[in-house]
Amino acid sequence: MTDALFPRLAIIGIGLIGSSIARAARLNGLVDDIAISDLSPVILKRAEELSLGDSYHAAAGDAVANADLVIACVPVGAAEAVAEAIAPRLKPGAIVSDVGSVKGSVVRQMKPHLPDNVQFIPAHPVAGTEYSGPDAGFAELFVNRWSIVCPDEDTEPGSLDRLVAFWAGMGANVECMSAERHDLVLAITSHLPHLIAYNIVGTAADLEKVTESEVMKFSAGGFRDFTRIAASDPTMWRDVFLHNRDAVLEVLGRFQEDLFALQRQIRWGEGDRLYDLFSRTRAIRRGILTLGQDAPEADFGRSHKAPSKPSSE
Amino acid sequence: MTDALFPRLAIIGIGLIGSSIARAARLNGLVDDIAISDLSPVILKRAEELSLGDSYHAAAGDAVANADLVIACVPVGAAEAVAEAIAPRLKPGAIVSDVGSVKGSVVRQMKPHLPDNVQFIPAHPVAGTEYSGPDAGFAELFVNRWSIVCPDEDTEPGSLDRLVAFWAGMGANVECMSAERHDLVLAITSHLPHLIAYNIVGTAADLEKVTESEVMKFSAGGFRDFTRIAASDPTMWRDVFLHNRDAVLEVLGRFQEDLFALQRQIRWGEGDRLYDLFSRTRAIRRGILTLGQDAPEADFGRSHKAPSKPSSE
Ligand SMILES: NC(=O)c1ccc[n+]([C@@H]2O[C@H](COP(=O)([O-])OP(=O)(O)OC[C@H]3O[C@@H](n4cnc5c(N)ncnc54)[C@H](OP(=O)(O)O)[C@@H]3O)[C@@H](O)[C@H]2O)c1
Ligand SMILES: NC(=O)c1ccc[n+]([C@@H]2O[C@H](COP(=O)([O-])OP(=O)(O)OC[C@H]3O[C@@H](n4cnc5c(N)ncnc54)[C@H](OP(=O)(O)O)[C@@H]3O)[C@@H](O)[C@H]2O)c1
Repeated sequence: MTDALFPRLAIIGIGLIGSSIARAARLNGLVDDIAISDLSPVILKRAEELSLGDSYHAAAGDAVANADLVIACVPVGAAEAVAEAIAPRLKPGAIVSDVGSVKGSVVRQMKPHLPDNVQFIPAHPVAGTEYSGPDAGFAELFVNRWSIVCPDEDTEPGSLDRLVAFWAGMGANVECMSAERHDLVLAITSHLPHLIAYNIVGTAADLEKVTESEVMKFSAGGFRDFTRIAASDPTMWRDVFLHNRDAVLEVLGRFQEDLFALQRQIRWGEGDRLYDLFSRTRAIRRGILTLGQDAPEADFGRSHKAPSKPSSE
Repeated sequence: MTDALFPRLAIIGIGLIGSSIARAARLNGLVDDIAISDLSPVILKRAEELSLGDSYHAAAGDAVANADLVIACVPVGAAEAVAEAIAPRLKPGAIVSDVGSVKGSVVRQMKPHLPDNVQFIPAHPVAGTEYSGPDAGFAELFVNRWSIVCPDEDTEPGSLDRLVAFWAGMGANVECMSAERHDLVLAITSHLPHLIAYNIVGTAADLEKVTESEVMKFSAGGFRDFTRIAASDPTMWRDVFLHNRDAVLEVLGRFQEDLFALQRQIRWGEGDRLYDLFSRTRAIRRGILTLGQDAPEADFGRSHKAPSKPSSE
């Protein structure tokens, strides 16, 4: 017996986020035992090679039996399949959570399948990288980042406290809000930026007048920043846009309006207005640095000393 | 007597780029003597405190007298003023160049003022950071980045070779192209990305339904990347958009078209098309990494080990 927050943790989907949770929960002594499941036998085997857990299960149901905390770490479009697979095997009193980048849809997909004797409390760590899979995860991913937890009227305060303590135990700051509010806030801080990044990289690739080689060579002018985001997992992001459609379309509409105004200002040479916008936007950057949500070093601290060499990925 | 490439270098405008050239030219032994001028007395004094040059001149004309290479490192909108100020004092046979982010306009602003007995060869190092001023510069800024040089029909091959050797001596790769082609290529690899970044940060700041505090807290979902670019110097970027209007509006038109198509795909739930775009965009990222134009480390290599602390800026 130890005094771990949750004796047994089950992780369904052992990719970037699932494997980071496995590493962080272990490192911080938050659990005694980790049961892992993944749809892909190759990834499950890789998780075992990396010693991410204590047991490995092809069937999600086998992993959740006897687990005190179950976290689904799968693309948002797979949430319902996971709920159906685990529902019959959940231990009474267990907490079921997830890490999906969209929350309203996950609630609609999962909650109806889950028994009344478990607590379903969705969550979303606002932390990640452009890489996927169990090799990409690391224990420090959540440190000083925000995790959003979305309780509802059925949530027991004691269960909520334990889930919040779990995320705090991995180094995260935790904020609670409704699933609906989450989906609107993340539409602007995450989903729209990804959409715009994917779009500009697509535009650049398709321009007939400029070659791909030129685009890549001269990308240090700003474009390369967008290509990092646009290298994120296509399945994950397809699901985000399909499942948070309304909020994404709402903020995209505003973005388009603003962009038309900017386009007009350029066309008519309205330098003062351009200068005004370009000055206002600096304040937001300063706020983000003050909150410790980005590195203040020039250029994100990218190395300038020597040529960067691509990894073997 | 040494065998420096240019015995005397004059730098007009000692900000991020000018001060990086001063440091790199010195470090690499490319010049014997550096004369510095800046419109701002405060910045000129700061350059002296940093020992960036050998002499400091309030009047640009005083700095260029007797210089073998003159580089204007001022916002694009100031190019004509610099040309007028230096023209009467240039040494016969000198090379006059610049570093402006737009080339066609700089040629139109400067060339008519310059005497026939100097060589005017514009250039643009595709390298920078979001910070400005002489403290922000560093000698390694140009290493492994591309510098574009724009000769025309009046350019003497010997002068071109020496200017190319100067940039190569600071660690840059050099490519020659026409000013017109430069402006189109940079419109997509630099100017449009900055415009989009400024726009999305403006949209986020203006949304009534989401607070600025939420935008900043949850910015690690992708948004923070855009805020770095949107923290760039407002004067510089106002000038870029005013002076490269046609090419920027052309690529912006394409971006808008593509964004409308994407918007429709989201509205109609066309997951396969989204997946297809999100997969294609990864190839460009891989190309950029292979060319050594970005860091392959996750998240640009941002530190995850400890909370980032803002600098005092
Ligand atoms: N990446 C980020 O930056 C980030 C940040 C915050 C939140 N999130 C969210 O976290 C979740 C996981 O993302 P990730 O980046 O960790 O993705 P990932 O690295 O691709 O891992 C997802 C894993 O889930 C597996 N999986 C898919 N469907 C499954 C199912 N029905 N049952 C069991 N396993 C299944 C996948 O296997 P296959 O490979 O065989 O499909 C894959 O191994 C997503 O909902 C995403 O929105 C991601
Ligand atoms: N920043 C980048 O990432 C980057 C990259 C590649 C190329 N560029 C280009 O490089 C040039 C300089 O940019 P920067 O980032 O180095 O800007 P910066 O740090 O703001 O420095 C520009 C300096 O030029 C001075 N200046 C303005 N007008 C002048 C004039 N008429 N005569 C003499 N000095 C004058 C400014 O003084 P005041 O402060 O008093 O105005 C300032 O000290 C721009 O054309 C830009 O497009 C920039």
